[in-house]
Amino acid sequence: MISFYNDYSEGAHERILDALIRTNRLQSEGYGTDAYCEEAKQLIRKHLKNPKTAIQFLVGGTQANTTVISAVLKPYQGVIAAESGHIAVHESGAIEATGHKVLTLPQTNGKINAEQIEHLIRAHYDSESFEHQVQPGMVYISDPTEYGTIYSKAELQEISKVCRKFHIPLFIDGARLGCALVCEGGDATLADLEELADVFYIGGTKMGAMFGEAVVITDPAIDHCFRYMIKQKGGMLAKGRLLGIQFAELFRDDLYFELARHAVRLAQKMQAGIRELGYPFMMDSPTNQIFPIFPDELIHQLEDKYACSYWDWGRPDPKHPNVRIVTSWATEESSVDAFLADLKKLTLKK
Amino acid sequence: MISFYNDYSEGAHERILDALIRTNRLQSEGYGTDAYCEEAKQLIRKHLKNPKTAIQFLVGGTQANTTVISAVLKPYQGVIAAESGHIAVHESGAIEATGHKVLTLPQTNGKINAEQIEHLIRAHYDSESFEHQVQPGMVYISDPTEYGTIYSKAELQEISKVCRKFHIPLFIDGARLGCALVCEGGDATLADLEELADVFYIGGTKMGAMFGEAVVITDPAIDHCFRYMIKQKGGMLAKGRLLGIQFAELFRDDLYFELARHAVRLAQKMQAGIRELGYPFMMDSPTNQIFPIFPDELIHQLEDKYACSYWDWGRPDPKHPNVRIVTSWATEESSVDAFLADLKKLTLKK
Amino acid sequence: MISFYNDYSEGAHERILDALIRTNRLQSEGYGTDAYCEEAKQLIRKHLKNPKTAIQFLVGGTQANTTVISAVLKPYQGVIAAESGHIAVHESGAIEATGHKVLTLPQTNGKINAEQIEHLIRAHYDSESFEHQVQPGMVYISDPTEYGTIYSKAELQEISKVCRKFHIPLFIDGARLGCALVCEGGDATLADLEELADVFYIGGTKMGAMFGEAVVITDPAIDHCFRYMIKQKGGMLAKGRLLGIQFAELFRDDLYFELARHAVRLAQKMQAGIRELGYPFMMDSPTNQIFPIFPDELIHQLEDKYACSYWDWGRPDPKHPNVRIVTSWATEESSVDAFLADLKKLTLKK
Amino acid sequence: MISFYNDYSEGAHERILDALIRTNRLQSEGYGTDAYCEEAKQLIRKHLKNPKTAIQFLVGGTQANTTVISAVLKPYQGVIAAESGHIAVHESGAIEATGHKVLTLPQTNGKINAEQIEHLIRAHYDSESFEHQVQPGMVYISDPTEYGTIYSKAELQEISKVCRKFHIPLFIDGARLGCALVCEGGDATLADLEELADVFYIGGTKMGAMFGEAVVITDPAIDHCFRYMIKQKGGMLAKGRLLGIQFAELFRDDLYFELARHAVRLAQKMQAGIRELGYPFMMDSPTNQIFPIFPDELIHQLEDKYACSYWDWGRPDPKHPNVRIVTSWATEESSVDAFLADLKKLTLKK
Repeated sequence: MISFYNDYSEGAHERILDALIRTNRLQSEGYGTDAYCEEAKQLIRKHLKNPKTAIQFLVGGTQANTTVISAVLKPYQGVIAAESGHIAVHESGAIEATGHKVLTLPQTNGKINAEQIEHLIRAHYDSESFEHQVQPGMVYISDPTEYGTIYSKAELQEISKVCRKFHIPLFIDGARLGCALVCEGGDATLADLEELADVFYIGGTKMGAMFGEAVVITDPAIDHCFRYMIKQKGGMLAKGRLLGIQFAELFRDDLYFELARHAVRLAQKMQAGIRELGYPFMMDSPTNQIFPIFPDELIHQLEDKYACSYWDWGRPDPKHPNVRIVTSWATEESSVDAFLADLKKLTLKK
Repeated sequence: MISFYNDYSEGAHERILDALIRTNRLQSEGYGTDAYCEEAKQLIRKHLKNPKTAIQFLVGGTQANTTVISAVLKPYQGVIAAESGHIAVHESGAIEATGHKVLTLPQTNGKINAEQIEHLIRAHYDSESFEHQVQPGMVYISDPTEYGTIYSKAELQEISKVCRKFHIPLFIDGARLGCALVCEGGDATLADLEELADVFYIGGTKMGAMFGEAVVITDPAIDHCFRYMIKQKGGMLAKGRLLGIQFAELFRDDLYFELARHAVRLAQKMQAGIRELGYPFMMDSPTNQIFPIFPDELIHQLEDKYACSYWDWGRPDPKHPNVRIVTSWATEESSVDAFLADLKKLTLKK
Repeated sequence: MISFYNDYSEGAHERILDALIRTNRLQSEGYGTDAYCEEAKQLIRKHLKNPKTAIQFLVGGTQANTTVISAVLKPYQGVIAAESGHIAVHESGAIEATGHKVLTLPQTNGKINAEQIEHLIRAHYDSESFEHQVQPGMVYISDPTEYGTIYSKAELQEISKVCRKFHIPLFIDGARLGCALVCEGGDATLADLEELADVFYIGGTKMGAMFGEAVVITDPAIDHCFRYMIKQKGGMLAKGRLLGIQFAELFRDDLYFELARHAVRLAQKMQAGIRELGYPFMMDSPTNQIFPIFPDELIHQLEDKYACSYWDWGRPDPKHPNVRIVTSWATEESSVDAFLADLKKLTLKK
Repeated sequence: MISFYNDYSEGAHERILDALIRTNRLQSEGYGTDAYCEEAKQLIRKHLKNPKTAIQFLVGGTQANTTVISAVLKPYQGVIAAESGHIAVHESGAIEATGHKVLTLPQTNGKINAEQIEHLIRAHYDSESFEHQVQPGMVYISDPTEYGTIYSKAELQEISKVCRKFHIPLFIDGARLGCALVCEGGDATLADLEELADVFYIGGTKMGAMFGEAVVITDPAIDHCFRYMIKQKGGMLAKGRLLGIQFAELFRDDLYFELARHAVRLAQKMQAGIRELGYPFMMDSPTNQIFPIFPDELIHQLEDKYACSYWDWGRPDPKHPNVRIVTSWATEESSVDAFLADLKKLTLKK
């Protein structure tokens, strides 16, 4: 059985395991105040421009989203997001549990744009009963999105411009950020995100680490007292060094980008191969998640050997379930080849 | 200047003021444990069937919604509501502030139906990632809705049936309940609501009281410890007697229904008169809120003498703002006549 | 049966009822944006100095405390209060329900002092694990306290000084503020509170209104967007005019102070009379709540004719329950005389 | 520099690292639904009796406390804990952030007892204003406590008895549970805790794992829908297998108990050696945390070579700071010997 179910089916890149073994018995400070975290921050900072930009390490994505959003919003504010955004649908109400509404906008291929955001903000303040409504206080986008698509640098610039015009922070969920940075059309760099966003994170969990997200905070007001928030929201790892050790390895020799390139290359190979066999896609994705539309029968034939996930949303036609195929830093090229070979056989047999 | 802006522009019905004066210097217990509240409950219970049904008095609608919903839901649950539901749009995130998501459904004339509700619940449990999503834990409907429309008894029965099938409480926001009970097509009684809902409230604020909502709780599990919730959510009035005195007057000689009939009759007279002059409506409303579509010019001509509200949602056409005209227990027939006369003049002049 | 149980056993002062009747059928804007509220604010402002000081009306004390505290604190902050403070013991966890810890200090006669506050704040920042603890973000005091005692102007100045030194807002719960302003030793004025506090409120509920608290906000940052908070916390009364009408009456001819003087004078007459008969007190109170220590037998003899409350905290001796006797704006002098006469009889008979 | 600062200064036991390497490239399900977690549960269950007892894995202690407590309590309830309990002082208000008050009791050597708990519960319901107070809804104890002390089986039985009498769940924070199970006087077994508590956790982070706490839930009502809570509170690790792999190793050959025995033995050797040199202790601790009282001068002399923590609470005398010395699964005996030798030298020189 080969799994294309997600990008967190395996452990961590071996260089990370080696570093854990190497440092295992050395004693360090707790709660992320250790030298490994410091080293990891320095290595990440090489990709950034502003020496005052802060970096905080958190264990997972839901935690990162919840901690950042609840640190930024005032009690009467909500966060603007695509209706398909992770915080809107797949976090068991984590944002609402901290007291805040997610103000959703219709998505196009998982994305929202500057115009939509500006319209929502203006509509709020134009309303005669605006104080009876949730005030928009932050913009959240995922890059890549939950649909595998990415924001171009130009799109990010426009969104950032609207956010600054209305003094509303921009937050980018980068759970799979590496894939957006290295894929075709991914013309934004970490330094661009630093310039355009107020907070973003460089996902580790889905990019080759055991776990961990590096939250980059460019607005000092958001970083102020942020560690209290990390502790309160359950994200302050006693052995915080584990995060430092992992991110140091990921950024020591650009391993992070290398792993992202691997995942993207294999997904794109898969996408090209599936398209060649004549199957349509829900949307075109340049990253490591692809969404082919397969007939039911084909799905049943494939699922003995290959695990994919089936999505319950955005389904264009009840008879054509949404298949999501994901590759990762650990996917072997032979798995992709085997899948394409089997798919070809099944397609021709038909 | 005559206001049709809302149904809370005046004080309270004179019988209520009289009762306040009559009882003013008498001493009573605090926090709603007084004899006036007891009397009011007995008077309301005459319209109910189950002697175990509990009644609790709260000051206002947002408070009633927040207290009930947060008392019922488990931390990982959300409340199903129409996208136009008061809790979804006009309570400054009060529900989210207690930690819960509002799970919205598309509305038709302000209403949702049993089929939509069942579909949402089934889709939740059918999802392979259901634990990553907010669990539906309650159904909220407003009757009359925010659009003035009402639920028939048959519709309520169907919704109730779905709720019970999935063991999900049904909560009816009756801020203007009197109007639903007395209007044309309003075939549900208080006893029907008692049977079909788990909680509902009989709004006083918009029906002739100074303030106050009588929350009727048919499920003892919801009433259990409910007073702690009232206190915590800021709804426990020290002089709770004020609520008892008001509701006792409203239900002593069916004043409540009489006031509702007055408001509805005048709004319907207005609706008929406007329609006769050829204006379309956003929807047909049988209650005390009506939504004519007027040309901009007409609106400007009217607004020197008459105050109405203009809604920023559901607008069918940017050039035709949504006008909302509301009558109340205190609206004078002469005001309605004057408006219709002026409208006629302006219409013919055109 | 005569009740000294609390100061909210009766309705409202007759001038307030008269004003309600006078204005009853006039139409006004909703939600506190009406002319009555504006008038009330102007009348209160006559006692203040800074024209930029904001005033907001809320329905009750728990609501005022919850709305103010949750508007001010950041998510990782708590509010410093006496262990006997209303928010610490008698609000069913309302503050915690908004996400904030009450950081309690030992009380002396219901009061805390500047030194204790400074010590708590310093201890927080001196701790090596301060980020793992709740950051002190506000100081809450009640004046008069829950024990009937008051803060002198000098004490308030010292507390205010510490608060400003550490940039921590000072919030005064003035549910019975009138009594502190007019009693012996009450040398602080409303203008002093305006200068020394960042927020305080002028209680109406316990001072002769039907309900209502006038929240005075001297820090514009706290007032900013405060109306969203009022709405969200369920405190925005649809017929907000009711608050304006009441406070306008209370402050039109200094009725507020007159009513306070009445309540205080009768309680002090009672205190002097009881002391003369040889009974000790839990503490000396200059306001309208007094705390005599009576033998159990005496309590039983009194309770057929007089209702007092018995407190379950701070009890010096299990055999001597804490009796709380409260007078109000509506207490009749004859009631006090009757009580003292009966007490004398029972005491001499013994 | 040798650190006795805490028990999370190193990585993880080598058997755990080996297991991570061994399984690294194997694919598994996400979010804790994998075979490793299942295996770990089976291994832990060998120490339990009831086959229906549930086990859930979480990343850290604050998260475990927050998730369990907020899953159990109703909105108007609080959790009873020692004033020195971790949730009361060292979690940045995490419990309050979920809406709940921590109802503190005075501690004796970090412990609370059945009598205190019963008194608090009875006092609540005896109060005439109980609905205005936070209802006690859960009991939290740490075993070992924050002071290194433990609860005997008899003490746990008494506490459990009170909890069941009042239908209030008992929750045991076992961040260092292994030490309580193996130390002198530690006569309770995991099966005893299973019988006496409703929820408890077997701490991994401080007992030799990289991270992780195994939450044992004996009450099915608490386990019901618990995974929604884990997700919402940010505790659902994408690579949940990491928790399973670690706990499987810890419980495969009783490694967990072996590591606990190691830590306890070295701390006790240290305690005996320090006592022999004439130093008093804050309290007698049978586990891996000890609290000697050293003169300031001695502390300064030691701190070049040895790191200990200094506590800001419970200090008996401002001139004698509280020193906390902690040993762990990774402490080397030679470190303890070196410390005792140096202490002897410094003591004799004096």
